[in-house]
Amino acid sequence: MINGKKVIGIIGGMGPMATADLFRKLVSLTDADSDREHIHVLIDNDPSIPDRTDAILYGGESPVPLICAAAHRLEAAGADVLIMPCNTGHYFHEEIASSCAVPLLSMPEETAAAVKEAGFDCVGLLATDGSVKTDFIDRAFAKYGIRLLRPDAEGQAEVMRLIYDEVKSGLTPAPERLFSTLDAMSAEGAQGFVLGCTELPIAFEGVGGYRFIDPTAILAAAAIKAAGYGVKNGAQECFPESMSR
Amino acid sequence: MINGKKVIGIIGGMGPMATADLFRKLVSLTDADSDREHIHVLIDNDPSIPDRTDAILYGGESPVPLICAAAHRLEAAGADVLIMPCNTGHYFHEEIASSCAVPLLSMPEETAAAVKEAGFDCVGLLATDGSVKTDFIDRAFAKYGIRLLRPDAEGQAEVMRLIYDEVKSGLTPAPERLFSTLDAMSAEGAQGFVLGCTELPIAFEGVGGYRFIDPTAILAAAAIKAAGYGVKNGAQECFPESMSR
Repeated sequence: MINGKKVIGIIGGMGPMATADLFRKLVSLTDADSDREHIHVLIDNDPSIPDRTDAILYGGESPVPLICAAAHRLEAAGADVLIMPCNTGHYFHEEIASSCAVPLLSMPEETAAAVKEAGFDCVGLLATDGSVKTDFIDRAFAKYGIRLLRPDAEGQAEVMRLIYDEVKSGLTPAPERLFSTLDAMSAEGAQGFVLGCTELPIAFEGVGGYRFIDPTAILAAAAIKAAGYGVKNGAQECFPESMSR
Repeated sequence: MINGKKVIGIIGGMGPMATADLFRKLVSLTDADSDREHIHVLIDNDPSIPDRTDAILYGGESPVPLICAAAHRLEAAGADVLIMPCNTGHYFHEEIASSCAVPLLSMPEETAAAVKEAGFDCVGLLATDGSVKTDFIDRAFAKYGIRLLRPDAEGQAEVMRLIYDEVKSGLTPAPERLFSTLDAMSAEGAQGFVLGCTELPIAFEGVGGYRFIDPTAILAAAAIKAAGYGVKNGAQECFPESMSR
């Protein structure tokens, strides 16, 4: 709490553009008619946090110590509820949450609950290798009886290329390379596509013609509610038919 | 400093969407090819800071105590250089800077210096009543011998409407109402237009056909340099011919 009001703390930097995207969505989803009705938000954007996929699959340095350090700085500054705009980082959710004195929302849990509430029962998962080659996202969706489809190996390599070689590298992404993968997953029964890495809503900006599920917007809406504020345009931002630019 | 690296602190909330815009520009202007080459940024987005124009012109509550409180939280968390994405708030720059242990960059000073370096000698100023009915921005530009033109009373009322009734209210802005004002200022000699309120680069998103001067991008670039990092695409983002969306 700062000046008697609830404060949202954002553990950022994974990556920085994804953190900026979450912050913009949080502001745009807050039901406010003037500056002073908005939420006090603290952001700790530490891009030096080690890569999550590298730690999960290839024995790279653990990101947990630097994530926890950011979480503790946010708590010390007054955050009442924490969010972390990095889907892959939620592999370590329990370990991080157990070191925090305030709640750390779970992005996969919030996404699965929102997807269920929106009436989907089978969706495609676009995410990092660290997320698709492990089962922490599956476990969140299984609780709600939702089936998760994955791209084939070639499609998954394109997803990684979009995330690492384009968005994280500051280059213009070419999401159209994934359209055939999305079409194949639609044919298998996917009713929508989880943009399950925070770089992906950025990579797909301007793309229409598919039903997208945006975990970044879903996490922002969950944080707004957790801080006791109202959400506006939730369905439009969380389940867009075309990604806004 | 955090983990041996320089940290930028952003005094935000004036307004929140403008703070998100600055953060995005800071990330996009940083010369980095991967997450880990980006800058550690701390943001304290306190939208409860009292309105600056109201305090300057109409005897409203001073924003200085809450601005300084945010600055001091950022310093305590490790910020080495502070920026404040609110042009009008710089009326109080000296008072705020004198309470800080680390440098607080000046948005009007950085803008005037960049405008001079870009070769302009007469520009139009679009800003709040608090900025155009006082002379703190004029003083910064006068140092560099740059002439500042202002909109007429009707045009100024439209600028205030765009800022307060549209961007700060979360509504879709209609910047085309200002085109005749811009054309009149061009006829008087304005070689470009300073979007001198951090809501205005948002209000003008998607507009082309004028030479804009974006103090939000200029401040982001100055902070990147002050933190010892490189800037990319500076001219394109700071002096756009059409505002990106």
